[in-house]
Amino acid sequence: MNYPNGRKGKGQPSIRTGQKKNDFANRGMTLENDINETNHFYLETNHAVVHKKPTPVQIVQVDYPKRSAAVIKEAYFKQASTTDYNGLYKGKYIDFEAKETRNVSSLPLANIHEHQVEHMRKVLQHGGICFFIIRFSKQEDTYYLPAEFFIQFWDQQFQGGRKSMPITFIKDHGHSIPFTFQARVDYIKIIDKLYF
Amino acid sequence: MNYPNGRKGKGQPSIRTGQKKNDFANRGMTLENDINETNHFYLETNHAVVHKKPTPVQIVQVDYPKRSAAVIKEAYFKQASTTDYNGLYKGKYIDFEAKETRNVSSLPLANIHEHQVEHMRKVLQHGGICFFIIRFSKQEDTYYLPAEFFIQFWDQQFQGGRKSMPITFIKDHGHSIPFTFQARVDYIKIIDKLYF
Repeated sequence: MNYPNGRKGKGQPSIRTGQKKNDFANRGMTLENDINETNHFYLETNHAVVHKKPTPVQIVQVDYPKRSAAVIKEAYFKQASTTDYNGLYKGKYIDFEAKETRNVSSLPLANIHEHQVEHMRKVLQHGGICFFIIRFSKQEDTYYLPAEFFIQFWDQQFQGGRKSMPITFIKDHGHSIPFTFQARVDYIKIIDKLYF
Repeated sequence: MNYPNGRKGKGQPSIRTGQKKNDFANRGMTLENDINETNHFYLETNHAVVHKKPTPVQIVQVDYPKRSAAVIKEAYFKQASTTDYNGLYKGKYIDFEAKETRNVSSLPLANIHEHQVEHMRKVLQHGGICFFIIRFSKQEDTYYLPAEFFIQFWDQQFQGGRKSMPITFIKDHGHSIPFTFQARVDYIKIIDKLYF
């Protein structure tokens, strides 16, 4: 039996749930793409060395077909134990997480994990530069929020504080990130202003 | 149809090539495990914040079964574009790659990729601490080799130099890493000696 992708099918083909697959592919895609392009630009121009970490995956089963690449046949998404991005700028360790929301007035804390915040605390303790990049995609506004302020707000939610961070808090404690043609999320500009 | 793992089978079960799977599971396992435990110890004792990056995987197909976790059904290993480990120690960015060999007298350069070396060059340029951890597993000797020396040797292979790094070169330019009960690959000791 032959499938359109040119490979032989074995037994019953698994069902591709197109809709859901798309959801996965697009999740946070715009901000992530912009940051990846920005990091690529920083790398090419020798400004900074910053990479996105690969998505953590628990691999359960791998097939090794003859004369072709190993195929992972069963794997699961794992929760990240750190932030998504880290690297090096002017000798300093930098570390950040990117979050995009379609809300217009606040960022829900629900999709940020406790151990990511713990990681950020440690980075600050050890003298790293740590922050969030937050995009409100409807307004297309992107902010740099130092982790210090994020953590302060985060901790308050356990003492009856809000579960959602208002855009006013982000504007008050953060910095609008300029969009430029080459560096679409030019966060290094903010780091320069704050630390150098 | 029920399989030993308790899940229902669909169609023809894929063949698990036990031998090869084992090879994969064990590849570099000892050194990697030791480094992971060491990093865990550094993290717990608040010495340093260093993590292994997840294995980079190209995800092709994901199933979203009702009432259970998303299952990755088709994915491929990608070549890493950076080193495997990075993090933060006393405010400094650190970055390294771990290699284990069963050879007794040299480390073959074949399983180190050009773009990993390029990454290391950039880390050095930007003021990071960059090195290799190399283990000769038969002797159970583990060395810290500063990336500067590795790169020097690496570049020579393209001018008729050796494709394999002799253990004598590693001993001359590197540092034996002590094995302690809690920090099985106590590389921070070497960093302290070299940089602080």
